[in-house]
Amino acid sequence: MRKKIKPEIWVMRVGHRLVRDDRVSTHIGLVARAFGATGMYIDNGDKEIKESLDKVTRRWGGGFKVEIINGWKKILHEWSDSGKIIVHLTMYGSSINQTIDTIRSHDEDIMVIVGGEKVPRPVYDISDYNLSIGNQPHSEIAALAVFLDRFYKGEELKGMFKQSKIWIVPNSKGKTVQINNEN
Amino acid sequence: MRKKIKPEIWVMRVGHRLVRDDRVSTHIGLVARAFGATGMYIDNGDKEIKESLDKVTRRWGGGFKVEIINGWKKILHEWSDSGKIIVHLTMYGSSINQTIDTIRSHDEDIMVIVGGEKVPRPVYDISDYNLSIGNQPHSEIAALAVFLDRFYKGEELKGMFKQSKIWIVPNSKGKTVQINNEN
Repeated sequence: MRKKIKPEIWVMRVGHRLVRDDRVSTHIGLVARAFGATGMYIDNGDKEIKESLDKVTRRWGGGFKVEIINGWKKILHEWSDSGKIIVHLTMYGSSINQTIDTIRSHDEDIMVIVGGEKVPRPVYDISDYNLSIGNQPHSEIAALAVFLDRFYKGEELKGMFKQSKIWIVPNSKGKTVQINNEN
Repeated sequence: MRKKIKPEIWVMRVGHRLVRDDRVSTHIGLVARAFGATGMYIDNGDKEIKESLDKVTRRWGGGFKVEIINGWKKILHEWSDSGKIIVHLTMYGSSINQTIDTIRSHDEDIMVIVGGEKVPRPVYDISDYNLSIGNQPHSEIAALAVFLDRFYKGEELKGMFKQSKIWIVPNSKGKTVQINNEN
């Protein structure tokens, strides 16, 4: 069984463009779940994205939560006011190579903001860390995965999700899928 | 300036579905470039993906190569016959946590296969390593990024790309973009 990883990380997707970004935002949710985050807020997201991610969680296990929200401000301000940490992933930010150890030194829960094409200036201001995973254009999906992998140091990939109906047994040459019909 | 990283890694995208996968395959190419790969083959890809990636390289620098191919077999067999390494990223494979050190111990160049929805069985057979970045459903973009980051241990994010027309200076609170019109 997967151990609870501390501190908890939530992901907030801002700048989602309806329909056009559905697949990217779904990938972000899948990455958040698979790499150990507790849940995800999607600002201005379709309910189909939540349904699709919830379906994965029912089938593959764990307790990943998805909430569609309208406006990121209230949640981020509450998060900040309660002393928790906000990390904004941006290609303009300071380097993860230099900053990850400082971020890992906090005990507080972390909100990771994953932006789309344009992120409003106040997001930069409210964030404790504006963090780049390399200062080159690539992918917000990749940025989130590398951040979570560096933060949890590979621990996030260990163990099974609880109450899974289906799981994979690692196999170097083929596919081994286990199905539990009792859950 | 970025140092040449050894061994060289090429990425091969198989299972690309025309139009539907354009954005995902473009993200895979951007990740390959940003995380230190030398180039990318796209099986059955649109030339628009190559044009879009080439444009990024002209602007942001470096020598990333993109080749559209028809059929992965010939290239993979030649790669394999010449003693180079093939790594296939798949959610069914052996765990990266246990396998990455072995993969890193090779001196030979590596081809990393990034699949789409369905990957033909011979791809599993010809690969030296069928490798999972966690055995959960997530994203081929994330899988490639974490593999390259673990393989190069963060070295891939250091230094500047050569002959860039534009680059970013890391900034913890805003955006600093440098433009060189002489290149």
